[in-house]
Amino acid sequence: VKVQTNSKLKLDDMMDLVVKAIESIEITGTPKELYEPIEYILSLGGKRLRPTLVCLSCDAFNGDVTNALHAAKGIEVFHNFSLVHDDIMDNANLRRGKKTIHEKWDNNVAILSGDAMLIKAYDFVLQGKYENLSEILTVFNRAAIEVCEGQQLDMNFETQDEVSIEEYINMIKLKTSVLLGAALKIGAVIGGASKKDSQLMYDFGVNMGIGFQLMDDYLDAFGDPKKFGKKVGGDIISNKKTFLFIKALALDNSGTMSDWLSEENFDESEKVNSVKGIYKNTGADSLCINEMNKYYEVALSKLDEINIDVHQKESLYAFADYIRKRVK
Amino acid sequence: VKVQTNSKLKLDDMMDLVVKAIESIEITGTPKELYEPIEYILSLGGKRLRPTLVCLSCDAFNGDVTNALHAAKGIEVFHNFSLVHDDIMDNANLRRGKKTIHEKWDNNVAILSGDAMLIKAYDFVLQGKYENLSEILTVFNRAAIEVCEGQQLDMNFETQDEVSIEEYINMIKLKTSVLLGAALKIGAVIGGASKKDSQLMYDFGVNMGIGFQLMDDYLDAFGDPKKFGKKVGGDIISNKKTFLFIKALALDNSGTMSDWLSEENFDESEKVNSVKGIYKNTGADSLCINEMNKYYEVALSKLDEINIDVHQKESLYAFADYIRKRVK
Repeated sequence: VKVQTNSKLKLDDMMDLVVKAIESIEITGTPKELYEPIEYILSLGGKRLRPTLVCLSCDAFNGDVTNALHAAKGIEVFHNFSLVHDDIMDNANLRRGKKTIHEKWDNNVAILSGDAMLIKAYDFVLQGKYENLSEILTVFNRAAIEVCEGQQLDMNFETQDEVSIEEYINMIKLKTSVLLGAALKIGAVIGGASKKDSQLMYDFGVNMGIGFQLMDDYLDAFGDPKKFGKKVGGDIISNKKTFLFIKALALDNSGTMSDWLSEENFDESEKVNSVKGIYKNTGADSLCINEMNKYYEVALSKLDEINIDVHQKESLYAFADYIRKRVK
Repeated sequence: VKVQTNSKLKLDDMMDLVVKAIESIEITGTPKELYEPIEYILSLGGKRLRPTLVCLSCDAFNGDVTNALHAAKGIEVFHNFSLVHDDIMDNANLRRGKKTIHEKWDNNVAILSGDAMLIKAYDFVLQGKYENLSEILTVFNRAAIEVCEGQQLDMNFETQDEVSIEEYINMIKLKTSVLLGAALKIGAVIGGASKKDSQLMYDFGVNMGIGFQLMDDYLDAFGDPKKFGKKVGGDIISNKKTFLFIKALALDNSGTMSDWLSEENFDESEKVNSVKGIYKNTGADSLCINEMNKYYEVALSKLDEINIDVHQKESLYAFADYIRKRVK
């Protein structure tokens, strides 16, 4: 893929470019038990948000997007690795509406092909030619380890009696947001951004990522089953301590919420509908939307602060808008 | 740790230096469920052969061993990551005579702390200052992915009806030997070796590694239970298709070997003793030792070929000798 870097790419064009680059990834070899699951999970699609962020950020600083695409592939393969292992740990059967690897094959295959993906993620990053490889990998590694920390916190919360909003936000920041921040920062570093600007890109991504995850939790309850990919109401059924859950439990005076939590035998759609009602009656749903908006505002203020012509940032504003509009 | 690079270190001194460096590794953080297992597995000891090879190889080319120690730590942390995940897949209860992570905690903890170790392995490599980081990481990545391929082949062999000696050697080459080769090659690259010499170091390591694994399999049957760390006879009990197994099955005309393989209810020590008898009667044990010696000879010939003063290679010859003498 050859890209003209002197004319800014529109968001849609960049997304097309990135989707095609991700589709072109070939991770093949023997034994097939190791490589087929990798091909399978990467073929399930997805919006490829993280690699798009790498390229948009690089492009904003007039960097070489063709070169950034290597790091972008690395970030996307890493993200998919984390999904494969998380799905084992979370006992998830479906991913993007299809069987997860450990369901389609088995746990061992999912562990090992996930490991291979994590290694291949570094391989993709290494295929680019950067002046500052060590810096790029340091940003990548820090986010990668924080994603693991976030996943462990998420698992801890399952058996932890009380989770505060602060603890919850910290968990989603680590599990989801830091990788968006790292994608933007890596793109900025490849594009030759100043230290200050690449840090602002990171902050833009982390805050947008928290907003993004709050919306994901919201959509888990209130989303359109046809568009969501996962089972709508899954968080409610499993008593997952999301923002909605924590707020509703604190605000519900009727005791219905805590009754549902201790109920072991229930009709799933009855529980989902009842808890969604509590989310609305307590105003937890609006609080979630407000919190989301708060993080989006901070994100945009960070993007404002970046010291490049506003024209250079157009696609990034469009990206933030695209992400935010998912909820409407 | 400060090292004088103008005077060659003896093998014992290098091993001491490396063991201390590995002991000094601190991988700490929150949540503790992620980091305590890492500290635990790294504290179980081991001979630290792989990081020692990185440093010996670097030292042979008069490279900066202090710098090589960073990559050495990365290789050792990677090796321990692979043990953690392999132990889940192999259902192993003991590692170096202590509980494995998935036994002491659970599978999810072992998956995730293993992932974190793989990421941290790259972090350690990155702490060094190299002229050729990309080359070092490319060698590292190739070995890392091959270790995964070897593990998958090893698992495939469990349900594969027939495994040839050639397939078996290829499996142990990938699962075990390439990492020894990579350790030596990375040390050589850091030490400024020529392309030819760093490739010879790799070949030295791979051939020594095959010899090493053949011996490991031999010791699984014939080793001293006090020294071996793992359960002696474990391979025999589980019908693992090792060199000894493949040769004995091909050479045993009495049918006792194949009877044991189909026997589901048996006294473990009776099976172990009987199969060890077959290994001896068929001469599979001597064939294993011969095969091992063959690979050691090739390994030494590669070391001979490296274009540096023989004095510079003394510790590497001593290392090969040390590894080989385990069997006596």
